Amino acid sequence: MKSNITIKDVAKKAGVSISTVSRVINDSKPVTDEVKQKVLDVIKETGYIPNPLARSLVTKKSQLIGVIVPEVSDSFVNEILNGVEEIAKMYDYEILLANTYSDKEQELKSINLLRAKQVEGIVMISWIVEEEHVEYMQKCGIPASYISKTARDYDIYTVSTSNVDATYDMTKYLLDKGHEKIAFVMTSQDDTILERERLAGYEKALTERNISLDENLIKHGTTTYEGGYNSMKEMLDQGVVPHAAFVTGDEAAIGAINAICDSGYRVPEDISVAGFNDVKIAKMYRPKLTTVHQPLYDMGAVAIRMVIKMINKEILEDKKIELPYRIEERESVIERR
Amino acid sequence: MKSNITIKDVAKKAGVSISTVSRVINDSKPVTDEVKQKVLDVIKETGYIPNPLARSLVTKKSQLIGVIVPEVSDSFVNEILNGVEEIAKMYDYEILLANTYSDKEQELKSINLLRAKQVEGIVMISWIVEEEHVEYMQKCGIPASYISKTARDYDIYTVSTSNVDATYDMTKYLLDKGHEKIAFVMTSQDDTILERERLAGYEKALTERNISLDENLIKHGTTTYEGGYNSMKEMLDQGVVPHAAFVTGDEAAIGAINAICDSGYRVPEDISVAGFNDVKIAKMYRPKLTTVHQPLYDMGAVAIRMVIKMINKEILEDKKIELPYRIEERESVIERR
Repeated sequence: MKSNITIKDVAKKAGVSISTVSRVINDSKPVTDEVKQKVLDVIKETGYIPNPLARSLVTKKSQLIGVIVPEVSDSFVNEILNGVEEIAKMYDYEILLANTYSDKEQELKSINLLRAKQVEGIVMISWIVEEEHVEYMQKCGIPASYISKTARDYDIYTVSTSNVDATYDMTKYLLDKGHEKIAFVMTSQDDTILERERLAGYEKALTERNISLDENLIKHGTTTYEGGYNSMKEMLDQGVVPHAAFVTGDEAAIGAINAICDSGYRVPEDISVAGFNDVKIAKMYRPKLTTVHQPLYDMGAVAIRMVIKMINKEILEDKKIELPYRIEERESVIERR
Repeated sequence: MKSNITIKDVAKKAGVSISTVSRVINDSKPVTDEVKQKVLDVIKETGYIPNPLARSLVTKKSQLIGVIVPEVSDSFVNEILNGVEEIAKMYDYEILLANTYSDKEQELKSINLLRAKQVEGIVMISWIVEEEHVEYMQKCGIPASYISKTARDYDIYTVSTSNVDATYDMTKYLLDKGHEKIAFVMTSQDDTILERERLAGYEKALTERNISLDENLIKHGTTTYEGGYNSMKEMLDQGVVPHAAFVTGDEAAIGAINAICDSGYRVPEDISVAGFNDVKIAKMYRPKLTTVHQPLYDMGAVAIRMVIKMINKEILEDKKIELPYRIEERESVIERR
């Protein structure tokens, strides 16, 4: 078995000392090109895998980056993670994942845990970033970037897309398609910055067309597929039949579509439905979901690249990176006849 | 901010020594009930959070369990992870996640990495467990359990469901519904134990009805939604129109349904489709997917419980736990008319 090989075996076979092998592996002190090549050849030949702990004792680098996520099984988080991981691998970093179920105490605890595990940096994905997170992270002195729509207000490194603008644009898009009675189903938690911003974007678009806010068309705190289903079902059962529904999450939007169909209406013929995020399922479902495309993979990639740059003391041009979103037109929204 | 409080502050406030506070936190040496209560009261009052690194230096326990996964964004893996995590939390363990993209070298490297991070145990989810994994893990001496359909053959702790039986049962179910020409789209990698076992289950059911294997109806190595779509499209484009399709993964099954619809056939009216696993999307899609239900959450929960028992030197009754599966009848398979 290849992994039985120790640093001692490599040294012996290459005819050099253990510390020379260590220098080559860790690139820590100068070694002649000839010796270096010899050691690398033996490593390749024997399949030697350096022990990361021993390695980190020499380099004082753990090659670990911590990633704090609200919910590993959320598809939005998932697709961001893909970007984080691929870039981490590219720079030879491993990922420690901490799942918090969006619980603030758990998020703070995770920062502490990751610090204890000697991570060199942290990427934090959180629905709601508060002052306490920011202060605590800064006190720990770990390079960190945040993926969160609510982190912008702090003097920290953030990656996001504009929440208000995206909500405004999609509402406007639905209005342009002739829908005036637009149900607004929010997947953010009740009365958070995120929810207030979304409501602001929705209201702005309506106000421009002189349409006043109708509370019967608004649903709050619908975070899951089931939440989307139940909110829509409730609305229809109360006799409120919108022209279109804008649901601020794709899984919840698909729940809403199913509720509409189960109530005897057709999507998009009777009621158009739009989602938010453009996760994998948006393309898998039929009708394919019209949604706000967010560059999730890129958000993850940019966030971890920021952290790696901080670790390497490279210059970062911007503290706030806002990536572009777009309306992805598919099949679930049509012109109102 | 509460987390500023140090062990020194707690000791001072409680009027005891630092080592007494440490003993109370770690339950390491006897302390009188009165002193213990006093320290606990101060901890509660001040909101002191013990530093996990310092704590692990005293208890020699990291309270960490490593979880090796083939792909964190795979919905099958995701639902297992939910079970792993909730049970870990219940026993006060944190999870270190290592993503391997099903690459064997990466899997071996991850074992090494997790060991270096002082994990107390490892849960390994892997499509293909080979002798090298098992030997390497045993050499490391870390308590470990495996979730894999291909791990059964080794003398290790495993959690699984029966692959051959489940494939046989679903094929039989489709035959019982009057479908004789059954497309078999395998989501396992080409020519692996997993694929050979599935093929054996499929063939066994056909043979019992004197139906011979038709290579035109069999597709290999279709791992994703796109894979399911393309395999089915190709089959139909070649003029092979089955009565039913059995796809051994739910996302790929949905891909197959979409390919069937895009080719002008209806599901289930013209062609029935069955999946495997019963991940979240199986219930979200319309028609709801008839599939082999696997108890994914339970598989994760049982696997980590095994590891925790090993860590605590509790008695484990079985090394091999096979959990029950069932055919989940929904809307995508109907009787052939």
